[in-house]
Amino acid sequence: MIKVGIIGATGYAGGELVRILTAHKDAEIVWYGSRSYIEEKYAKVYQNMFQIVDDVCMDDNMEELAEKVDVIFTATPQGLCASLVNDDILSKVKVIDLSADFRIKDVAVYEKWYGITHQSPQYIGEAVYGLCELNREDVKKARLVANPGCYTTCSILTAYPLIKEGLIDADTLIIDAKSGTSGAGRGAKVPNLYCEVNENIKAYGVASHRHTPEIEEQLGYAAGRKITLNFTPHLVPMNRGILVTAYATLLPGKGADGSLSLPDYGQIKAAYDKYYRDEKFVRVLEKGVCPETKWVEGSNYVDINFVIDERTGRIIMMGALDNLVKGAAGAAVQNMNLMFGLPEHEGLELVPMFP
Amino acid sequence: MIKVGIIGATGYAGGELVRILTAHKDAEIVWYGSRSYIEEKYAKVYQNMFQIVDDVCMDDNMEELAEKVDVIFTATPQGLCASLVNDDILSKVKVIDLSADFRIKDVAVYEKWYGITHQSPQYIGEAVYGLCELNREDVKKARLVANPGCYTTCSILTAYPLIKEGLIDADTLIIDAKSGTSGAGRGAKVPNLYCEVNENIKAYGVASHRHTPEIEEQLGYAAGRKITLNFTPHLVPMNRGILVTAYATLLPGKGADGSLSLPDYGQIKAAYDKYYRDEKFVRVLEKGVCPETKWVEGSNYVDINFVIDERTGRIIMMGALDNLVKGAAGAAVQNMNLMFGLPEHEGLELVPMFP
Amino acid sequence: MIKVGIIGATGYAGGELVRILTAHKDAEIVWYGSRSYIEEKYAKVYQNMFQIVDDVCMDDNMEELAEKVDVIFTATPQGLCASLVNDDILSKVKVIDLSADFRIKDVAVYEKWYGITHQSPQYIGEAVYGLCELNREDVKKARLVANPGCYTTCSILTAYPLIKEGLIDADTLIIDAKSGTSGAGRGAKVPNLYCEVNENIKAYGVASHRHTPEIEEQLGYAAGRKITLNFTPHLVPMNRGILVTAYATLLPGKGADGSLSLPDYGQIKAAYDKYYRDEKFVRVLEKGVCPETKWVEGSNYVDINFVIDERTGRIIMMGALDNLVKGAAGAAVQNMNLMFGLPEHEGLELVPMFP
Amino acid sequence: MIKVGIIGATGYAGGELVRILTAHKDAEIVWYGSRSYIEEKYAKVYQNMFQIVDDVCMDDNMEELAEKVDVIFTATPQGLCASLVNDDILSKVKVIDLSADFRIKDVAVYEKWYGITHQSPQYIGEAVYGLCELNREDVKKARLVANPGCYTTCSILTAYPLIKEGLIDADTLIIDAKSGTSGAGRGAKVPNLYCEVNENIKAYGVASHRHTPEIEEQLGYAAGRKITLNFTPHLVPMNRGILVTAYATLLPGKGADGSLSLPDYGQIKAAYDKYYRDEKFVRVLEKGVCPETKWVEGSNYVDINFVIDERTGRIIMMGALDNLVKGAAGAAVQNMNLMFGLPEHEGLELVPMFP
Repeated sequence: MIKVGIIGATGYAGGELVRILTAHKDAEIVWYGSRSYIEEKYAKVYQNMFQIVDDVCMDDNMEELAEKVDVIFTATPQGLCASLVNDDILSKVKVIDLSADFRIKDVAVYEKWYGITHQSPQYIGEAVYGLCELNREDVKKARLVANPGCYTTCSILTAYPLIKEGLIDADTLIIDAKSGTSGAGRGAKVPNLYCEVNENIKAYGVASHRHTPEIEEQLGYAAGRKITLNFTPHLVPMNRGILVTAYATLLPGKGADGSLSLPDYGQIKAAYDKYYRDEKFVRVLEKGVCPETKWVEGSNYVDINFVIDERTGRIIMMGALDNLVKGAAGAAVQNMNLMFGLPEHEGLELVPMFP
Repeated sequence: MIKVGIIGATGYAGGELVRILTAHKDAEIVWYGSRSYIEEKYAKVYQNMFQIVDDVCMDDNMEELAEKVDVIFTATPQGLCASLVNDDILSKVKVIDLSADFRIKDVAVYEKWYGITHQSPQYIGEAVYGLCELNREDVKKARLVANPGCYTTCSILTAYPLIKEGLIDADTLIIDAKSGTSGAGRGAKVPNLYCEVNENIKAYGVASHRHTPEIEEQLGYAAGRKITLNFTPHLVPMNRGILVTAYATLLPGKGADGSLSLPDYGQIKAAYDKYYRDEKFVRVLEKGVCPETKWVEGSNYVDINFVIDERTGRIIMMGALDNLVKGAAGAAVQNMNLMFGLPEHEGLELVPMFP
Repeated sequence: MIKVGIIGATGYAGGELVRILTAHKDAEIVWYGSRSYIEEKYAKVYQNMFQIVDDVCMDDNMEELAEKVDVIFTATPQGLCASLVNDDILSKVKVIDLSADFRIKDVAVYEKWYGITHQSPQYIGEAVYGLCELNREDVKKARLVANPGCYTTCSILTAYPLIKEGLIDADTLIIDAKSGTSGAGRGAKVPNLYCEVNENIKAYGVASHRHTPEIEEQLGYAAGRKITLNFTPHLVPMNRGILVTAYATLLPGKGADGSLSLPDYGQIKAAYDKYYRDEKFVRVLEKGVCPETKWVEGSNYVDINFVIDERTGRIIMMGALDNLVKGAAGAAVQNMNLMFGLPEHEGLELVPMFP
Repeated sequence: MIKVGIIGATGYAGGELVRILTAHKDAEIVWYGSRSYIEEKYAKVYQNMFQIVDDVCMDDNMEELAEKVDVIFTATPQGLCASLVNDDILSKVKVIDLSADFRIKDVAVYEKWYGITHQSPQYIGEAVYGLCELNREDVKKARLVANPGCYTTCSILTAYPLIKEGLIDADTLIIDAKSGTSGAGRGAKVPNLYCEVNENIKAYGVASHRHTPEIEEQLGYAAGRKITLNFTPHLVPMNRGILVTAYATLLPGKGADGSLSLPDYGQIKAAYDKYYRDEKFVRVLEKGVCPETKWVEGSNYVDINFVIDERTGRIIMMGALDNLVKGAAGAAVQNMNLMFGLPEHEGLELVPMFP
């Protein structure tokens, strides 16, 4: 039984970790960290856990935690994990960081987009970017995993095969993303009030959202070079779910007869299948079916599909996931499973809930 | 492995049966009945089931089904199950009917409130009202179970202990219930369109809703006499969840010194505990905490609590459940578990999802 | 042109006052008071007012205001208005207080339910309870009007004629109310976050909500005696709207032949018509039509109807209004119109918006 | 007083025409056409109009209508208006068609995208595309106006000045649009049910939506040549509102010193101001403020803003409107005002409702 400690257990991502791990047969949460609710019963904060979780919330003491648990999840604001880890801790316990602290390899890029000084850049090198579908083998050996962002997971998985296979021009990539409100966290702020979000949609962080460099870095690896793209997030009046609609110009390829032509449905589909055929959590939908966030709600799936627009020579790629599961806690547990040699899907066979 | 057939698998309750049974380790669905979608892939109707369910939808042939399965769930409109069952079928297979056909013992009451002629009144007598918390032992032996209505389950469990213990005057009971929209089913009707339900609340079926006689019958058994009460359902702009707010006049009891006085918090709490202390799926909340539908979403729990109003001598009881789980499919699986000698909670340890 | 000052112009009720008064042909807002946003442009706080309102927010200086305006609206938390008014101010300017400070005649009741000491009880006597449908003539002469609460307006208007006419037993009255989330105000609190309210319904303030004594006082005047009743508010996932479902036992009356019998549809309808036939803003619906909050959204209407339940001898009364209009700002403007001798409906002929 | 007839008065756009015209001081609706509800009271279909509209619904007899009214609004499915108009009718009455029948000048394009044969192509030439901000003078003289589509109005107004001024490359234009559900109409279809739309977002009509050629035609006029672009609509869980997020590559211009450089904030802002400075219903927001659909709800405004992304050389343009007002009925009334020589904003000074 893997002993788990969570720092930041009362945020929405932390709560989702608790929901998933509570039903995980090989893991047991022994530390519900929450600086805001120290010594309060966890089930008073999240009443859904009444009679399921009896523990009280604890402070964020990573040193003590390292003695008691096998793995620490940090579901905390940027900067906290980087300020707490050290050699001693990493020698005793595995760390899965749900914040952005170890996602970006270039510390200058991190510091520019996040506006904070990185407290432990010495660990960035060894940290593994925990997108299991891309980095499975590295995750298995990691002691420090940078769990990907919600928008980034959706964006990367949606576009990755086409960039990797050279089917689209990566620099034409425009990602228009839409997210449910849980992505904004549980902080009490006016813009997140029910009456401000309900019956409303808006873009935010236009040309400046912090997930941009993370997407660029990862898709840049696929492209084999540095790329620059547009990413625009939107706030949607729903609790969960991210939908990515991504646009790119198709690159012509040489046909059997040597002539150049744009890739067709079959070629694009084959590229997706090449990378995702054996991926349990990535579902490439049947032709003509658009992903909908509701179809993956509560589950670890990403649903992906695409439409070729011959008029403009562009492809429209679409991806949908649950931002709290595959976009956060589910992916983190998937990483944990790999790191501890468990079946990757253990505790993650969550059937999407509809309606 | 229990072989399961579902008639009405593409309604919302049918879909929820599929969601729950797909993750049930001792059951296997072998027949997805749906007259509207015969020969279509089930996962085309409910895209959340893509790559999870590969089967196609079948017609509603109960005779054939009886040969192939161990238990049939009928998640169909009123009248259908009663028109299909016969001695031969009941001798071969267990039937759990999610419609109202076998819930009401007095056929005249059924026919009056539902406005249809009962096609097989001869089975009403043997049918067991499948509210496991009240009729556990009878369910275990039943071959025909009448799965309770969603509003009724919530209403009955909320008021039962107080009526049974004589703490409230059953004839003063007023049940004001609020339901999410999935309770209205998946039929394409203007009043259920998004724009008609969203940003709106209304009462409906006032003084005439069909769950009224079902509540009266079951609570009448608790009272030991026929009772009459008010039940008013409301349509709430949310997908899932029922909240019952029930009002009744407290009955004075004799204290240790022989004087009459109204029951206090401790006495009421003791009554709830007497009946629900060992019930896994009924959670009597801590003092001062009001049930919220969100806290039970996706799970088989009913959350219950109460407030005594000394000014008026009344008690306000509150109960919350997920209408598709404890109010329909979850309760049906709970019944199945009992009927087949499985642990009652098998496949039902669904942790509520929040947010 | 009436010069208007608003204290608390950036709350939801204050914002609605601005929306209504902006289109009022005989009024002009000259003071947008908002302690939180002093010197910020009003249209930065409420971007819907961009290019409509150019003013900046001002501090809450009632003395200065009294020199500059003809009427002050206080859309502020309890206690503020009572702490600011004085003889000098009341001699110069009319005050319409949207808080509870002057609604309750018995200061002890106010202090008990609100938990604060009343700062100017000397004005409670002269303050007129500004429910125009009941107190029209007094409002016309008032210099200090206590604008009714949102729940109370809906509850009182729904039950008033039947109590006044002795058709129901006032002490059996149970009011189950449901409100949109704007009623909770614009304060940044976790329970009002989108993800906490959405897909959820709950009761709150059970047996303790502050609108209870206000309803009891006003309906007590109609009954001609002190009454006690149950009032339970619920939070509904929608922005606007209050629905009241009220239950009471019908009182038998003497028929033409001297025998006692319960009132029938015609008698109840006649009672409603007696009081509301000429009321522009109260719409008693046609038989069988249940009020829905969406049908009054954005307007000053209250929609009312009822169903008699002969089985239980009770009547179910229903009322719906927009909590920010007839439940707050609309009613306040209606009061202003009366106080300044304008047509009562001036600026209030807002057609409900659907969907 | 202008006498108005509406064909299709019980759809959502028709209902909005009724809401707006009811409060219009120079217009009077004398014909509420609705084939589905003939002889039913209009206020039974839209209960919000109880005691406001007393008329009953009439059949769609355009010949008879032409005798009785000054202007006919057709808020009907594609094809109906084109099948009904003729010389006689157009000689007697002005027609404002809210369908797509007369929006597209090239009948072959219309027939290809809409899949129907145009019944009266002879009137396409004289029909004026009723986007008042672009075609004001032509609208004044028109007897047949093609009221623009909701998505198209938002898309065109958002991009128009930059294309007209040659600041962006029109062929790089990608329009990602998000709409509330009222845009799908009031037809009873499963995909528009509350439970299917709520808590969900999806793209639809990808690379095939019928508003595409309409946008291309109108923006092509601005570009002075045929253009091709991408347009992707999404369904958002809210009643009203369209948000357009549009991406395009900025075109370098010659600076004062003859060197080429991308346009900066000031140049882009100046272009918007050039066209919209005097437009009452187009609000170009202050720097840094993103349009939100809620801020224009219930009003005839379009809110527009933009962000330059220097990293990619693209501009992100954003526009928001209420699809039933500026996107349909409000624009139609704006056209009517122009056609009858009234002030353009008559009856349209609707203050946006928030929240």
